[in-house]
Amino acid sequence: MAYLNDNYLKLRAGYLFPEIGRRVKAFCDANPEGAKRLIRCGIGDVTEPLPAAVREAMHRAVDDLGQRESFHGYGPEQGYEWLRKAFAEHDYRRRGLEVSEDEIFVSDGSKCDTGNILDILGSQNRIAVTDPVYPVYVDTNVMAGHTGEAGDSGAYEGLTYLVGNEANGFVPGVPEEKVDVVYLCFPNNPTGAVATREQLVKWVEYARANDAIILFDAAYEAYISDPALPHSIYEIPGARECAIEFRSFSKNGGFTGVRCAFTVVPKALEARTASGEKRALNPLWNRRMSTKFNGASYVVQRAAEAIYSPAGQEQVEALIAHYMGNAKILRDCVTQAGLKVWGGENAPYIWVKGSQGATSWQIFDRMLSEANIVITPGSGFGAAGEGYFRISAFNSRANAEEAARRIGAMAW
Amino acid sequence: MAYLNDNYLKLRAGYLFPEIGRRVKAFCDANPEGAKRLIRCGIGDVTEPLPAAVREAMHRAVDDLGQRESFHGYGPEQGYEWLRKAFAEHDYRRRGLEVSEDEIFVSDGSKCDTGNILDILGSQNRIAVTDPVYPVYVDTNVMAGHTGEAGDSGAYEGLTYLVGNEANGFVPGVPEEKVDVVYLCFPNNPTGAVATREQLVKWVEYARANDAIILFDAAYEAYISDPALPHSIYEIPGARECAIEFRSFSKNGGFTGVRCAFTVVPKALEARTASGEKRALNPLWNRRMSTKFNGASYVVQRAAEAIYSPAGQEQVEALIAHYMGNAKILRDCVTQAGLKVWGGENAPYIWVKGSQGATSWQIFDRMLSEANIVITPGSGFGAAGEGYFRISAFNSRANAEEAARRIGAMAW
Repeated sequence: MAYLNDNYLKLRAGYLFPEIGRRVKAFCDANPEGAKRLIRCGIGDVTEPLPAAVREAMHRAVDDLGQRESFHGYGPEQGYEWLRKAFAEHDYRRRGLEVSEDEIFVSDGSKCDTGNILDILGSQNRIAVTDPVYPVYVDTNVMAGHTGEAGDSGAYEGLTYLVGNEANGFVPGVPEEKVDVVYLCFPNNPTGAVATREQLVKWVEYARANDAIILFDAAYEAYISDPALPHSIYEIPGARECAIEFRSFSKNGGFTGVRCAFTVVPKALEARTASGEKRALNPLWNRRMSTKFNGASYVVQRAAEAIYSPAGQEQVEALIAHYMGNAKILRDCVTQAGLKVWGGENAPYIWVKGSQGATSWQIFDRMLSEANIVITPGSGFGAAGEGYFRISAFNSRANAEEAARRIGAMAW
Repeated sequence: MAYLNDNYLKLRAGYLFPEIGRRVKAFCDANPEGAKRLIRCGIGDVTEPLPAAVREAMHRAVDDLGQRESFHGYGPEQGYEWLRKAFAEHDYRRRGLEVSEDEIFVSDGSKCDTGNILDILGSQNRIAVTDPVYPVYVDTNVMAGHTGEAGDSGAYEGLTYLVGNEANGFVPGVPEEKVDVVYLCFPNNPTGAVATREQLVKWVEYARANDAIILFDAAYEAYISDPALPHSIYEIPGARECAIEFRSFSKNGGFTGVRCAFTVVPKALEARTASGEKRALNPLWNRRMSTKFNGASYVVQRAAEAIYSPAGQEQVEALIAHYMGNAKILRDCVTQAGLKVWGGENAPYIWVKGSQGATSWQIFDRMLSEANIVITPGSGFGAAGEGYFRISAFNSRANAEEAARRIGAMAW
């Protein structure tokens, strides 16, 4: 008699973005005119063409596969050496950070990596997430049996929620209690908040004092323009002993449909066996990837490599400048509407507090029906997000300007 | 204090193919002349160019990403509708089998899928694998904590091993005892054995009688030439109530470096909660993929779609004919050398019994040093593989012919 994984039955409702998709489809089916005017500022999905340098590299890679001599079958499960070298050199060593090729693992996406990392961690760990938070961190812990049931607020028993709010500028500090694993994401999704060096130093000190592990999601680091802000957790001394870092090409190179990311597991990072011995996690992740993954597509790895070419770098910078131009337009319009706003300065997300005590989904439905704009309800990111909403800057300039105009015209 | 997943520490040695890689590298470093003559018949990796229809589709897909109007960001986590429709139509409905689009989940590879499927299954299940077996089935169960420690033979406590041997032609029958989940792979990797309709009927009857689930790996179905042999488990009545099927493009379209596969989870398939209620597994797998995966690369999905075009079908048939021509040459040479052989007729693998009581790794080392041929040691696939070795037919014709000549010249 085969059993299923009962932990899945604890999951609340649908995953956030499919739920948004369902509501938008229902609206469009019922309102053909509104559907034509629809502007999507919901899911954080890029909209602009893939950089030319990346496309050229992909064309060459496809041609490689057409000749026996340059054909590539199974690659290393960890990713090609030339790609891991590009990552290590460009993102770390040139910035004076010690990361070696065999600490880097290429994958098909950070969503997969941030979920799969739990495979190598013990079920005894006390897990902490920020609130609001990227739902994948929470849901994958529920699926792995690291939580109890969800309460009325949607919060799961057994998880530690570190509340982000106006008082802390959506950058929660270290908790009083001991936790073993903590997810941090800066620049933050969904709030656009950024962590200063001093704030991250406190987190690294906390982790080292408690033998805890920081799972640091740096998917949006390319959007940092303030030179004082850290791009990598490894800029903080001691982080190699306590942090795993996730990097993605979705939001800098526009790879949401191409699929490439990487994870850094430093060799100095250890965790304990049930009997208390310390062991390095790098070989465990290597084993996980060797056994449950077969490498990212060759064509995709060549695409990622092209991001590091001089032309690729220039084109990625232009893409980011474009989206950050949108962010400014959207942030300004919300500010002018008299709403409180965070993010949108070193991050492509604008986090807004709704007025008049409306719930996030009420705001979502109102913006959809009145302004034909899709945003993301803040409560979809956790109980602490209730009453807020997220506007994504991933759009054409024309759409961003039109969205700003419509938001400005709404009665807030 | 962060804990690691202790189950990883139960894993024996390295994953098979990295271990082969290490031995081959050591040989090549020490023998530059031998390295030049090396013929790889080890890992089952394709060698011939990607079909032209597939490359053309990939070029077009890359161009799509260069225009705002045809840009594709995040796709459905389950795969694009047009691709799932092609799979359902071509692989199932045209053959009279009932499989709908929403029972199909596109991924980046069957290795991932066959490992990840354990996410939705309960830890109470008694798991059965054949022996010899594709190591991923075993290792992922060890990692998930479904086993005890490995014994001297390498077999893990708590797993049921169904021994394939000369007597059953490497197609194990149903066990006396009850198991809850069983992995079947036909045409088989590593033995090349195929299951008849009658043999699969017995498995489906067993699964239905015991409320067990069959995880059916059909990665090599395209190599079946005998019209009497089933290509899909769903050709067996009742299989929709008890079987999940894994399909891959690695070995028909030559996608080992491109990365695309799909999994079928029929809506009629149920498993039990801890309290004994029956629930459908399809929504659980849908939730798993929505939460821990972000869809296969758009370019890769277009590549897979092209396999189903008339030109793609013709080119794939030619590829398979090529590899099966190699299989015949290799099978014949081994037979002529007086060795016992299985497979190589409806599968790209030739399974050979070594002579004189040599262990599989002894044969591996001898063939590497004497004939400069890399094979896969049978013992790497389980205790029952000891004394056997696998020859892969994935090669150029010239290499297959030269390998056959060298094998024929060895003193067996």
